Amino acid sequence: MSAQSRFGTDVYAHRLHAAARAAADAGLAGLVITSGYDLRYLVGSQAQTFERLTALVLPADGTPTIVVPRMELASLKESAVPDLDVTVRDWVDGDDPYALVADALGGAPVSVAVTDAMPALHLLPLAGVLGATPVLATDVLRTLRMLKDPAEIDALRKAGAAIDRVHARVPDFLTPGRTEADVAADIAEAIVAEGHSEVAFIIVGSGPHGADPHHECSDRALQAGDIVVVDIGGPYEPGYNSDSTRTYSIGEPDPEVARRYAVLQRAQQAAVAAVRPGVTAEQVDAAARDVLAAEGLAEYFVHRTGHGIGLSVHEEPYIVAGNDLPLQEGMAFSVEPGVYFPGQWGARIEDIVIVTADGSESVNNQPHDLVVVPV
Amino acid sequence: MSAQSRFGTDVYAHRLHAAARAAADAGLAGLVITSGYDLRYLVGSQAQTFERLTALVLPADGTPTIVVPRMELASLKESAVPDLDVTVRDWVDGDDPYALVADALGGAPVSVAVTDAMPALHLLPLAGVLGATPVLATDVLRTLRMLKDPAEIDALRKAGAAIDRVHARVPDFLTPGRTEADVAADIAEAIVAEGHSEVAFIIVGSGPHGADPHHECSDRALQAGDIVVVDIGGPYEPGYNSDSTRTYSIGEPDPEVARRYAVLQRAQQAAVAAVRPGVTAEQVDAAARDVLAAEGLAEYFVHRTGHGIGLSVHEEPYIVAGNDLPLQEGMAFSVEPGVYFPGQWGARIEDIVIVTADGSESVNNQPHDLVVVPV
Repeated sequence: MSAQSRFGTDVYAHRLHAAARAAADAGLAGLVITSGYDLRYLVGSQAQTFERLTALVLPADGTPTIVVPRMELASLKESAVPDLDVTVRDWVDGDDPYALVADALGGAPVSVAVTDAMPALHLLPLAGVLGATPVLATDVLRTLRMLKDPAEIDALRKAGAAIDRVHARVPDFLTPGRTEADVAADIAEAIVAEGHSEVAFIIVGSGPHGADPHHECSDRALQAGDIVVVDIGGPYEPGYNSDSTRTYSIGEPDPEVARRYAVLQRAQQAAVAAVRPGVTAEQVDAAARDVLAAEGLAEYFVHRTGHGIGLSVHEEPYIVAGNDLPLQEGMAFSVEPGVYFPGQWGARIEDIVIVTADGSESVNNQPHDLVVVPV
Repeated sequence: MSAQSRFGTDVYAHRLHAAARAAADAGLAGLVITSGYDLRYLVGSQAQTFERLTALVLPADGTPTIVVPRMELASLKESAVPDLDVTVRDWVDGDDPYALVADALGGAPVSVAVTDAMPALHLLPLAGVLGATPVLATDVLRTLRMLKDPAEIDALRKAGAAIDRVHARVPDFLTPGRTEADVAADIAEAIVAEGHSEVAFIIVGSGPHGADPHHECSDRALQAGDIVVVDIGGPYEPGYNSDSTRTYSIGEPDPEVARRYAVLQRAQQAAVAAVRPGVTAEQVDAAARDVLAAEGLAEYFVHRTGHGIGLSVHEEPYIVAGNDLPLQEGMAFSVEPGVYFPGQWGARIEDIVIVTADGSESVNNQPHDLVVVPV
């Protein structure tokens, strides 16, 4: 793992301080963060332990402790922990790591918040030892995680530019007779070649498969006349994700397809145009939905308009009906309305946008038109 | 996804029935199983949803229900669900999926057990709606998951033979001057070429890196005289994992290294020889540890002797001090003692064994000697 895999130590020192203050403001004794994105966010650790507990214990007041299996001590050196004011408490099989967590909080019973990724395997015994049911740390960390700092925004821009370069190459891959899986293999290679550290997901939904928003890829061979949804992304060091969708037409599209696609394009544009500080997440969702509804297409848009993005591909803020969260400068999320006609075809247009002082900046800048691939 | 990715429907019908009975025996109203190995085990689903709830609700008495995001309905068709007597309750953003879970259990409050992989994100709101703190389903599903049926044993044998073929090729990859990462890339290709569906993990620990049991791989170049720990594995359809370690010496080893390795080899052999129905997991652990202790090497064996394996690389039974579980025919686990000399070198020998009526069968059959690679 190179230094590139995390930011400088001061970034994490600042985050730990801010997270502890947020825990105090919430009236909690502290936070308990196991492996996952919150842990990477707070100390730059990519620990992936599952059945053996690795937990950052962040008291609202006092020095943080990391409880870690002894065999994971070496990999901890790649995180910011050794450079931070964090006490390391290692444990071996046979020890009770939950008791170490309670100790680091000054003893039970205490009210803590836990990372949303903490598995039941750890959460239930931890709750037993702490003597109180934890709450989700999502609320405590929400503002911190949602408001991207300049280094994070820069990382998202680089990821966005990289996935744009992949989309620019996609038409070359879409030859009739090749399968979705063939295309996905080319895209996987391009995602890494264009600078991502790995592939996170690849959707190649051709013809009727495009009508399933979560179709991945199959052995279906592309045919002239297919509409093809290509939704791709991956992490770019230090771990910030790209995620962009464009829709391709193999040969000239049917006029009715073109008409409906144009409505979708207006819907996506309307949603992006709605983004600015103070507007709510659900208003952005409604902006896309209203355009589709005016043309009788609302029922074909079967998912939310977007999701936040950062270290995780899906995080807050969710751009969905019912979310009255006012947008703030520094939030980053997808705007990705789609239309899906079961058994026939589907289309989606997706950009990652960052809220600016007076609007938004898109990190994806490939054209939004239906991309016609000549046959 | 091909039919190969799961067993026949009758296998899952039997498992659902047995799991419901086990829940009833435990005095529970039912089980709630979100994405992960338990879900794949019970209905052959490989759903990977995180923030949107997919949950199999298995009442102790009555028809199971699967609560699933509408956009995941299509991928559900690849599981055994459509062929089973399972009610499908789909939901869209804005609905309360936890209320659907409670409905499927006949209403709150009810005592349920949840899969150990359920994230806090779902567990905490679910506990709120159910009006009672769930317990871990691990206890309820333990016996079922641990006792492999003939189809599972066959899958583990195939996975074991495949990773043996990879180890047979490893000496060709271990040329001085090549890096651990170079070797890992060759191994990754071989893991897939020999029939695994993907790579789960690759450890190439050369020289001092071998002293870290969880080192993965690095840019360190191999040198003549290095001892190299190679611990590799991956899933083999329908998803059962291989996991085998052999230790290699680049050139003839130092006599003291050879002496210590010979002790380790006896320790691993003693542990395997101890395996039979009725012996406890900790007795197998002790069998390895005792051999090392007799030669003053106990302190260099810093982890448990083994872990169960199946759909998950690490599952019950854990072969560790304190686990007095009596072994039963059909259990499958690793036997993998190691010795680690910080800053110098390490060694580990690992086979997956299956408990038989009167002993054990190893699915790994490469020689256990330190493999000397000529330089």
